[in-house]
Amino acid sequence: MSQPHVVIVGGGFGGLTAARCLRRAPVRVTLVDRENHHLFQPLLYQVATAMLSPADIASPIRHVLRRQRNARVILAEVTGVDPSRRVVALDEGELEYDFLVLATGATHSYFGHADWPTHAPGLKTIDDALEIRRRFMLAFERAERQEDGAARRAMLTFVVVGAGPTGVELAGAMIEIARRVIPRDFRVIDTSSARVILFEAQDRVLPAFPAAISVRALRDLKRMGVEVRLGETVTRIDDRGVSIGPERIGAGNVIWAAGVQASPTGASLGVPMDDNGRVRVEPDLSIPGYGEVFVIGDLAHVLDERSGGTVPGMAPGAIQMGRHVARTIASRAKDRTDTRAFRFVDKGMLATIGRGRAVAAISGRCIGGWPAWVLWAFVHVLFLIGFRNRLAVMAQWAWAYVTYQRGARLITGGPKGREGT
Amino acid sequence: MSQPHVVIVGGGFGGLTAARCLRRAPVRVTLVDRENHHLFQPLLYQVATAMLSPADIASPIRHVLRRQRNARVILAEVTGVDPSRRVVALDEGELEYDFLVLATGATHSYFGHADWPTHAPGLKTIDDALEIRRRFMLAFERAERQEDGAARRAMLTFVVVGAGPTGVELAGAMIEIARRVIPRDFRVIDTSSARVILFEAQDRVLPAFPAAISVRALRDLKRMGVEVRLGETVTRIDDRGVSIGPERIGAGNVIWAAGVQASPTGASLGVPMDDNGRVRVEPDLSIPGYGEVFVIGDLAHVLDERSGGTVPGMAPGAIQMGRHVARTIASRAKDRTDTRAFRFVDKGMLATIGRGRAVAAISGRCIGGWPAWVLWAFVHVLFLIGFRNRLAVMAQWAWAYVTYQRGARLITGGPKGREGT
Repeated sequence: MSQPHVVIVGGGFGGLTAARCLRRAPVRVTLVDRENHHLFQPLLYQVATAMLSPADIASPIRHVLRRQRNARVILAEVTGVDPSRRVVALDEGELEYDFLVLATGATHSYFGHADWPTHAPGLKTIDDALEIRRRFMLAFERAERQEDGAARRAMLTFVVVGAGPTGVELAGAMIEIARRVIPRDFRVIDTSSARVILFEAQDRVLPAFPAAISVRALRDLKRMGVEVRLGETVTRIDDRGVSIGPERIGAGNVIWAAGVQASPTGASLGVPMDDNGRVRVEPDLSIPGYGEVFVIGDLAHVLDERSGGTVPGMAPGAIQMGRHVARTIASRAKDRTDTRAFRFVDKGMLATIGRGRAVAAISGRCIGGWPAWVLWAFVHVLFLIGFRNRLAVMAQWAWAYVTYQRGARLITGGPKGREGT
Repeated sequence: MSQPHVVIVGGGFGGLTAARCLRRAPVRVTLVDRENHHLFQPLLYQVATAMLSPADIASPIRHVLRRQRNARVILAEVTGVDPSRRVVALDEGELEYDFLVLATGATHSYFGHADWPTHAPGLKTIDDALEIRRRFMLAFERAERQEDGAARRAMLTFVVVGAGPTGVELAGAMIEIARRVIPRDFRVIDTSSARVILFEAQDRVLPAFPAAISVRALRDLKRMGVEVRLGETVTRIDDRGVSIGPERIGAGNVIWAAGVQASPTGASLGVPMDDNGRVRVEPDLSIPGYGEVFVIGDLAHVLDERSGGTVPGMAPGAIQMGRHVARTIASRAKDRTDTRAFRFVDKGMLATIGRGRAVAAISGRCIGGWPAWVLWAFVHVLFLIGFRNRLAVMAQWAWAYVTYQRGARLITGGPKGREGT
């Protein structure tokens, strides 16, 4: 009899962890992803802000799993799941499974505004990051050629919507580039006059973090020159800027870091979901009625007993869930019943703001400034998959830190797209 | 009286060298380019074959010139030149000049086949390189999912048309990746069974190099497993492969490295051109009738007394021409007449084929193998503009050499384009 077939959909932190943790289990593993690479998403904002190249934070999934003989990798798009037939539908063909792990993550939510994505790109994929980088660098180029004062000011105004970790990191990096990195490169404009405005609908930045962290992060952002506007909701976004109720801000660049929506794969399961499209899972992360189907990571709505809320949609939660379902599947593959409940261990939260500035909440203690920044850098490099990437990233950070330069300031692609030039 | 205004169009080797050599001249310099970066084109094939990231071989032009106070940089597209009015037309507005240096280079020529560019991308820009990388990596992914044997064989057949330096370098790198880098990553296909077929219409590879070099390069290519077909012309390219007269080769990937056509900017001058659209310049590199307009680099048809032909369209020629016109303009700006003739100094030719394999022709002597490869690596790193890039590239080469791995094997962008994911 052949070994049970485990299909894992999604090569992010959750899916890849599950695959790796099954390496000694008596199962065959198939990991399906529509991208060929695992992306180290916590550092994606550094690609968007020209610090790192895409290859520094991404590894081909099949390369990561090359030594794991019981695993194969397929580049394909999953179009749906039929739990009653135990089948995953792909863009071409389908896959039968004995166990299924759904880890397709989340995408942006623009709260139903269909035209906002065009004007305000979000940051989830490498292509997103390159698009934001292109628009950001292009804004200074256009301002350099613009003779009208008001138009130039709008070009040099950058709006970031949403002050979660991504929004805070983007805003901090942008003001740093404008004030420290590129002023000498331009002859006409003063890049340090650029405005970076960070909007947050809630009353503090980093709303998912402890309150003390928010206070510290707000102080750091203001000191760096970011204009932070709390408790205000952007009501309109178009190609010339944003509106906040009656108030209008001309801005050549708007970036969306606000809403998150679980990927649509979850809906095909036909089980209860929350408002963000996340699947409400059982305590063991399986779905109601189908004990062999697990949902993990950003796609899962998982209750966290200790905090009373849900497990936050960040890498540590996804990794822990991936490990948990791998353990469950491994023991079930050995004909044991295993429905152990998942329990989230909060190891702390980290966000970086700028050069030598970060904030961290670790076992109830809040730290900021240099110590937090060193911790942040250490943790992120440690977790970057692939030894080569680690070395390259460290070298680039060190170099950028000393010289205030950024290596990846290229404008490529563009609306003409790849067919163009 | 204000200083003479020198407009340089194009930030490649020729234009950038001219700008830098004018740094102490009593002139104002404006460099116009439609890209924001100078590209180290000799290493572009390494981006296409996943060895380097775009940022490793490109620097923002305004960053390169940031300390040169008499120079400014404009990101704009030049749409034409009116030498009688001394005006360059841009996509928006125009620029008046006292001296003009046209260095807009060359693009691909598909010999009038309008549909070939879609099926067989060429390699001139970063976007070209990323597109080739995407197609190349995607071919293996598709083959891994393909169950039909004939279709799979076609997917794993790569055709390179044209055996100049770019074609030879691409073919060598591709066979190396298929046989050495990725075999372990795939479970179904044997990537080392991939075929790389290199077509050259002339009777030897590297036709612009001395004959002894061609012999050596051919031997190296064959030993590595490249199928070289000389004296044969591809007569048809479509999305399923190529035809050579009645013969048909199924190939999922075709790359164009054959024809070169000077950029269309030259045509607007209204002066004599050669068959490839290059401007026939006077001995001092100015154009007939307009002593203040110079054409350099790949856009110029420059006779080389010693070889009897034209100066080859490679970096050394462009750099020497840039230096020459800068000197001429500097002395004319000081009210001296200067119409010194340009004389090309051939310092040698280099091409790399694979790991530890290269060929070089230096002052009449031909060398191959390891010594040529070390020389090649040394020269290329030496010329890479920007200290950071040099370090990063060396580190990546060393790492790849030891481990046989390549860091930039990402599939990004794609036909869906940047709007997509």
